Amino acid sequence: MNVLVINAGSSSLKYQLYDMKTENVLAKGRVERIGMESSILTHEVEGQPEVREVSEILEHTTAVRKVLDMLTHRRFGVLRNIDEVQAVGHRIVHGGETFSESVLIDADVKLEVRKLFDLAPLHNPAHMMGILAVEANLPDVPQAVVFDTAFHQTMPKTSYLYAIPMVLYRKHQIRRYGFHGTSHDYVSKRASEYLEKPLEKLKIVSCHIGNGASCTAILGGKSFDTSMGMTPLEGLMMGTRSGDLDPAIVPYAMNKEELTLSEVNSMLNKHSGLIAISGISSDMREVVQAMNEGSEPAKTAFEMYVYRIRKYVGAYAAAMNGIDVLLFTAGVGENSDVLRKAVCEGLTFLGIELDEARNGVRSGDPRRISTENSRVEVLVVPTNEELLIARDTYRLVMTAKEAAFDE
Amino acid sequence: MNVLVINAGSSSLKYQLYDMKTENVLAKGRVERIGMESSILTHEVEGQPEVREVSEILEHTTAVRKVLDMLTHRRFGVLRNIDEVQAVGHRIVHGGETFSESVLIDADVKLEVRKLFDLAPLHNPAHMMGILAVEANLPDVPQAVVFDTAFHQTMPKTSYLYAIPMVLYRKHQIRRYGFHGTSHDYVSKRASEYLEKPLEKLKIVSCHIGNGASCTAILGGKSFDTSMGMTPLEGLMMGTRSGDLDPAIVPYAMNKEELTLSEVNSMLNKHSGLIAISGISSDMREVVQAMNEGSEPAKTAFEMYVYRIRKYVGAYAAAMNGIDVLLFTAGVGENSDVLRKAVCEGLTFLGIELDEARNGVRSGDPRRISTENSRVEVLVVPTNEELLIARDTYRLVMTAKEAAFDE
Repeated sequence: MNVLVINAGSSSLKYQLYDMKTENVLAKGRVERIGMESSILTHEVEGQPEVREVSEILEHTTAVRKVLDMLTHRRFGVLRNIDEVQAVGHRIVHGGETFSESVLIDADVKLEVRKLFDLAPLHNPAHMMGILAVEANLPDVPQAVVFDTAFHQTMPKTSYLYAIPMVLYRKHQIRRYGFHGTSHDYVSKRASEYLEKPLEKLKIVSCHIGNGASCTAILGGKSFDTSMGMTPLEGLMMGTRSGDLDPAIVPYAMNKEELTLSEVNSMLNKHSGLIAISGISSDMREVVQAMNEGSEPAKTAFEMYVYRIRKYVGAYAAAMNGIDVLLFTAGVGENSDVLRKAVCEGLTFLGIELDEARNGVRSGDPRRISTENSRVEVLVVPTNEELLIARDTYRLVMTAKEAAFDE
Repeated sequence: MNVLVINAGSSSLKYQLYDMKTENVLAKGRVERIGMESSILTHEVEGQPEVREVSEILEHTTAVRKVLDMLTHRRFGVLRNIDEVQAVGHRIVHGGETFSESVLIDADVKLEVRKLFDLAPLHNPAHMMGILAVEANLPDVPQAVVFDTAFHQTMPKTSYLYAIPMVLYRKHQIRRYGFHGTSHDYVSKRASEYLEKPLEKLKIVSCHIGNGASCTAILGGKSFDTSMGMTPLEGLMMGTRSGDLDPAIVPYAMNKEELTLSEVNSMLNKHSGLIAISGISSDMREVVQAMNEGSEPAKTAFEMYVYRIRKYVGAYAAAMNGIDVLLFTAGVGENSDVLRKAVCEGLTFLGIELDEARNGVRSGDPRRISTENSRVEVLVVPTNEELLIARDTYRLVMTAKEAAFDE
């Protein structure tokens, strides 16, 4: 079965086509600048040059049609016929309290996703456009939705409630949801396999460190606490997001700088984090390079970034009363040995001992980077959120087919 | 020497009169409802019944005069003559980056305290009224100011900077300051004396848990990080304050509930924390009682409160790469064995072992509540912020006198 994975933004759309027999990516690409005259479709097939096509793509239905045209293109395509797309899986950022697992799309699911627009106004409406666009182009193909928040629905009240008037939770669903759930779920399972230890017995702190970044305390395979909150703004310092902040700073800065609600949101989400402190870049690679070249602000940014990861590792060890596994994943977590070293250096009190040679090795496979004597296993586990969406979609579609066959 | 300690609020004023030879409190009291017709002065002398006097006190100068009248009152007073007040020490909440220690008041100091009004609009202007009121009544008596923030001025950049545009720090001094500094300073020094171990070699996590609450990482006697931030709102869950929060919740709630900047501030500072979750009280004693009587919301409030302290202990152990001493102080920290037990129960991974019998003992003295085998010393150290203000004031005045004598 071929599964098309879609991650739709308001003016962009990413896709991967998976062959689920091999779990290989047959083709992948993205549409950018949807809604403009010069939209760009970029399409890649392993071993072939990238294809770029500029055209007018005013909305998502056209974007999906262009993608399907490309997938079946005589020269650049990988399918003979559009029928060979047998299922579509969508990434949805916010599943609220409604969705604690991936589901097949039907009218009810669409209604519930709509109800969550308020909680993720930048993301969920765009995802819905992606769903409707696929529906318009492939009316008979089953679609599934996979939520960034679903894995965290196991958190206890003590983790997910904020200490604010309960009416805000009851009326507006203001609580901690957490994100990167698909990734934290996947890497913790991979870690358990790699270590050959049952997930049920492990206390894992999972650090998903990419442009967005979050730490999760995973107790017995279940999310117990996570650093992102109602939105992806809370927690660690990120590329352009502030992470944790005295909440009183928000009204204070609004008053001092005469900012509107949307301006303060934009400041904290898009102009904070690494870029704000380093003054150089939101990309950790560039910050590290500048630091190595002697930039003081870059050094401060790097140290703040590391320090905050370290504090979360400590906090989550305390949350679970222990830690067996510390794992790093996502762009920065997988690739920056400098960052991993800096985080672990300050955590020897937990019994963490990094093996510098192992830490320096680059690989696409899960690997141990702690010494044999380390009381905590430190791992790098590459994540693959798209593959997980493809797998969940495949599983749901197959189960539904079997159920239909049984009837 | 007799030192009068003043803690002036906008409509109230607390005082203690210390005899510095013995460090005994000769008298103490408070003026409430300043600015109203029926202001209340409450005056206490050890071993005598409390005196209450209702009168019209429209501003702070009158309030101070009433206090001085009471201190020299024929029947209720403890001084024969007003000259016997030889120095006055004021508590000031916010010293910004200007003050890293207590100082004697002069024209420059008053100017600098004024410059900090913006950072603590509810507190600093009221403190200034207290200073001016004493000046008007006792023009020749030296006055000193002791800052809640001063102890934390040793924090490194990585602890005090927020990951937001640096212009907000440069232009508006938005950074972490921390509070309860006088208390954290005092109890950490007392802990070192009690343990007979040099402060320079200790990694202490100090938990000041009162109606306001903060944790501080104290490395070698210096504040390394602290949970309160630019304002006392950040960090732990408190009686009526939210503590940590996804910053995005602030604009979200403002929008949903149509709140102004001052309304959202008031909600987070006065209607959040224990009272919001328990629905019963902002007082931990009442919350614990309700929990023991079976109230579910009280139980949730208690567990959230404990969980957040525990996470900060873990985070600060990570910040210092270890912890030698965990100490509890202030109203709840000193008196709630239930709370201390709940916090420590989840921290056995740090080598913390609570001695339940010792934890149950009530006393006004510093005491160990961990077992002999505990890898971390867990202490209860009663705090006394007023005494510290008196001591600092006494020291500054004596030093100035000696300097004047030498000239």
